[in-house]
Amino acid sequence: MGSAFDEKDYLACCGSTKFAKEMVSAGPFSSYDHLVNAARDIWFNKVDVNGWLEAFAGHPQIGQSPSSSNKTPISAQWSKGEQSTALATATDSSLQELSDWNTQYWQKFGFVFLICASGRTTSEILAELKKRYLNRPIIEFEIAAKEQMKVTELRLFKLFSNVTTAASANNA
Amino acid sequence: MGSAFDEKDYLACCGSTKFAKEMVSAGPFSSYDHLVNAARDIWFNKVDVNGWLEAFAGHPQIGQSPSSSNKTPISAQWSKGEQSTALATATDSSLQELSDWNTQYWQKFGFVFLICASGRTTSEILAELKKRYLNRPIIEFEIAAKEQMKVTELRLFKLFSNVTTAASANNA
Repeated sequence: MGSAFDEKDYLACCGSTKFAKEMVSAGPFSSYDHLVNAARDIWFNKVDVNGWLEAFAGHPQIGQSPSSSNKTPISAQWSKGEQSTALATATDSSLQELSDWNTQYWQKFGFVFLICASGRTTSEILAELKKRYLNRPIIEFEIAAKEQMKVTELRLFKLFSNVTTAASANNA
Repeated sequence: MGSAFDEKDYLACCGSTKFAKEMVSAGPFSSYDHLVNAARDIWFNKVDVNGWLEAFAGHPQIGQSPSSSNKTPISAQWSKGEQSTALATATDSSLQELSDWNTQYWQKFGFVFLICASGRTTSEILAELKKRYLNRPIIEFEIAAKEQMKVTELRLFKLFSNVTTAASANNA
């Protein structure tokens, strides 16, 4: 038996339409390894640069609450969970500084600052933002795509675990 | 004395609005070297990935006549000149093959196949297209940006030469 998900499931993990469609075609998957290898291949080798930008546009600004930028309610909920350490360690002034740097980042690169925030404090995120701000646009574009893939992998794991947990419960 | 050009002049060389605006701010330029160094810095370090895509969208498909894709009449005329070797060496069947591969390339990468065509035959261009088609999208994106810069440099040279020729004629 393999796990089959639909386009909406995959869009909650990564907001590129091409990614979601190609994942549906590549499935069903017999294991999480099988699933994640297909996802990496599709994201890095098949999704074009417009698809990367489409996925980036699905993320809220770090430090802000997920809203219309998220394509699905489940991705809004996941986004909140991924930022829980950052939010717990934030002060008003650090959130303001983060917001100012996010604006500057956007002005330079034309897309939102993307980082796999799980387990990172606000000051760690801010330090990373300031460092990455110095990059050339094409370099930063690829770094952002790698961070997107880390976020995608965490979400695919949740998706896969939910299904296998449900399947075990049904078989119990 | 330096050479000052306006946004429209720079847009004819490279169809990114940001590139054109930054070039106007960086000028006037005392020499072609000064001009081209500024252009390289702006294109590779300041224009973001959206600006690269905007510039790529200003090119006709290789083997097709420049039309609405060119932002200015002068860039349409230059584009025709740059493709003159390709057009002189083309046959009906090679143009058809080029058109088919251009379509495939577009489907994979989401932007037009960009090559500095000056002095290249149709079969050389086709061979290059087939080779580059195998690249990952992000790799191909950067190669296309480098080809765009080669085209831009040739056009900046024409722009600069026209002005200095006119200036010499006036001083004669």
